[in-house]
Amino acid sequence: MLKTPTIVLNVKTYAEATGVKALEIAQLMNKISDEIGASMAIAVQATDISRCVAEVKIPVFAEHIDPIVPGSHTGWTLPESVRDAGAVGTLINHSEHRLKLADIDFCVTRAKELNLDHIVCTNNISTSKAAAALSPNFIAVEPPELIGGDISVTTADPGIVSGSVKTVKDVDKNIKVLCGAGVKNGKDVGKAIELGAEGVLLASGIVKAKDKESVIRDLASGL
Amino acid sequence: MLKTPTIVLNVKTYAEATGVKALEIAQLMNKISDEIGASMAIAVQATDISRCVAEVKIPVFAEHIDPIVPGSHTGWTLPESVRDAGAVGTLINHSEHRLKLADIDFCVTRAKELNLDHIVCTNNISTSKAAAALSPNFIAVEPPELIGGDISVTTADPGIVSGSVKTVKDVDKNIKVLCGAGVKNGKDVGKAIELGAEGVLLASGIVKAKDKESVIRDLASGL
Amino acid sequence: MLKTPTIVLNVKTYAEATGVKALEIAQLMNKISDEIGASMAIAVQATDISRCVAEVKIPVFAEHIDPIVPGSHTGWTLPESVRDAGAVGTLINHSEHRLKLADIDFCVTRAKELNLDHIVCTNNISTSKAAAALSPNFIAVEPPELIGGDISVTTADPGIVSGSVKTVKDVDKNIKVLCGAGVKNGKDVGKAIELGAEGVLLASGIVKAKDKESVIRDLASGL
Amino acid sequence: MLKTPTIVLNVKTYAEATGVKALEIAQLMNKISDEIGASMAIAVQATDISRCVAEVKIPVFAEHIDPIVPGSHTGWTLPESVRDAGAVGTLINHSEHRLKLADIDFCVTRAKELNLDHIVCTNNISTSKAAAALSPNFIAVEPPELIGGDISVTTADPGIVSGSVKTVKDVDKNIKVLCGAGVKNGKDVGKAIELGAEGVLLASGIVKAKDKESVIRDLASGL
Repeated sequence: MLKTPTIVLNVKTYAEATGVKALEIAQLMNKISDEIGASMAIAVQATDISRCVAEVKIPVFAEHIDPIVPGSHTGWTLPESVRDAGAVGTLINHSEHRLKLADIDFCVTRAKELNLDHIVCTNNISTSKAAAALSPNFIAVEPPELIGGDISVTTADPGIVSGSVKTVKDVDKNIKVLCGAGVKNGKDVGKAIELGAEGVLLASGIVKAKDKESVIRDLASGL
Repeated sequence: MLKTPTIVLNVKTYAEATGVKALEIAQLMNKISDEIGASMAIAVQATDISRCVAEVKIPVFAEHIDPIVPGSHTGWTLPESVRDAGAVGTLINHSEHRLKLADIDFCVTRAKELNLDHIVCTNNISTSKAAAALSPNFIAVEPPELIGGDISVTTADPGIVSGSVKTVKDVDKNIKVLCGAGVKNGKDVGKAIELGAEGVLLASGIVKAKDKESVIRDLASGL
Repeated sequence: MLKTPTIVLNVKTYAEATGVKALEIAQLMNKISDEIGASMAIAVQATDISRCVAEVKIPVFAEHIDPIVPGSHTGWTLPESVRDAGAVGTLINHSEHRLKLADIDFCVTRAKELNLDHIVCTNNISTSKAAAALSPNFIAVEPPELIGGDISVTTADPGIVSGSVKTVKDVDKNIKVLCGAGVKNGKDVGKAIELGAEGVLLASGIVKAKDKESVIRDLASGL
Repeated sequence: MLKTPTIVLNVKTYAEATGVKALEIAQLMNKISDEIGASMAIAVQATDISRCVAEVKIPVFAEHIDPIVPGSHTGWTLPESVRDAGAVGTLINHSEHRLKLADIDFCVTRAKELNLDHIVCTNNISTSKAAAALSPNFIAVEPPELIGGDISVTTADPGIVSGSVKTVKDVDKNIKVLCGAGVKNGKDVGKAIELGAEGVLLASGIVKAKDKESVIRDLASGL
């Protein structure tokens, strides 16, 4: 399982992180992770999983899986296929790709059966508690209104982080809790850990940075 | 552009066509296409595009693209990404992955801008006519109730094929029309051509076959 | 709040329960409820709420609310509007109308703020537990594969009923638990109560019955 | 069929047009329509159809119908039900409630079979042409980016109106074309007619107006 504390990068469908550019970011994280021993993972587009897996040792995640089993499901993302391409984990129910409750349950179950790590994203304390009822590996709480913004969730709404940690651990203490939205630097990461989170999930903070290496090193300094 | 008459295989998310098995089918089609000079293309899962593209010369398609531009769209299929992975075309609006009308329009426009061949799937003559209004490369008419079944659309409902061909060509004679659903052998392909179609779109007929090579050769004999 | 034990009828969009026919069923339930003092409620289509409310005293529910606030949402079901039409409660996340987790949370919150009773439907024990985390009034567990069928959930899968009751009460003992799927007669209702449920949610058992009055009386005998 | 030229008001789910307030606006339009002989229709929420129909003579429309037939479809909007409640027409595929192409086709077919007028909303010339292929009664072209704004489509993008009219009439001259987005006064309505449209579809221009009567009279002056 993904070691904690950790930094998980979601590259979304940013032009700056598609194809060879996704690979370059993965390689940069791989180098730094290797150097300083920090746990880092990267979630990439389905098209880019196999290329990244072939070149880096850090865990490569899918950004999404669909609630399906093998069969007639043209163009959907089969959990078996992301694992087959080499992904060791997946995001589930990201703010930009919400799922129905029964489908989150289905995806968590499939991920467990396929030995895929799985980070279920939530938007507040009550949905974090609901997600905890499904006993996933990880829950990442991210207030949607702060995603992609300039102020870290750890500054704008520290209570949602500490509250989610407490609530989730009360349901099942084995679930790891991450937080995300607006996370940009090592100080934000440090604050997340201080609030009880076991890592962060971020995207634009790295993907949109001019000097990605400095940003990643700074983020890692907060672990 | 994909040469016609053609056979387009959609491998869906069948276990028999995921990962290395998708590649094996692509290689088989590549070998036969090379040998007999028939036009064939394969649409594979997003995770498998780059692996297939690296090994075969036949056109590799995506099974789907989402109506998005680069940006914050976690886990969706970016048109640029399937092209970047090496796909030269895509299905749009497959029966198992229907899109809103405005989104089909958006995807067709993006596919054109990215020089991706694009096959818009439809379910009857009137939606074929509507799709034709968007001037895509290809329209593939497939009655949903016959998909995956044992009787070819060319036998069960030949009028939907000839009717779609006529209606589409009346709107824009440059659009190529394929048909699909239940297509299993060379006779079905021959009948499709006879009805005015410029090829077939099929899935289980090949994917579920025990002797895939014989089936592909038989299908190709109908071109 | 809806008194328990209770029988909640969901008339769906059955032809046999649209318009004046919905009203006739509501009147029948009203008469029997009045006569024997049993708690019964009816969930009707949005178009039929005001007509039923005007004629019966039993609680009238909406079948669904959408996760919206007043504004630009053409054709969606505003929680305020069903209340304004006279509904005193609503189903949320029915098997035929599933919602995203964040939207269930939103709808439960809106229902509480508007003093609408709300029955969150779930499909198994783990989603019942997840729904319980949101502290709704009611949870109704219904295995989708048994809905509309001939065998009552209380016979086909009694463990899902008792398990949901136990799990939900462990999270929040104030939440009332109903069960549904295949419920047809008083014996099924009695078994539901015996398994710890505080009532049943049903549809075709009444709507498709030739002699609705007998069926309702029989069901009520099991309370 | 709804007479043209016409003004169609869509009240959406605005607080200012829910329940008795929807009825008050309908009555105001009814009074003015009666006085000056102008064709006007009002599309209201499903919950409000029967109440409006009981009190006004102008045509009452639904804001939406779902692509279903009577049966097990909890909480969806059955075409039969809006007609049964007294609606004589419906919007289909509004910008805020887009449908899949095959579902627009299905809804148009159902509306015709049920003798419901139906206004298919589109977002540009190419989707207007596609919608025309389905031969609906009415097409209303509304650029989504102008909806709810201060500048009328007739000023901001007159070419989309005249272009849609021409394209639609080329496909089927019996289809009536409306336009909408930002329409606020009689001058906008006059310009719409001048561009070839047979009326307008609007919402906030009336619903959000302080003096609704003056606005309606002014709009009608442009017919």
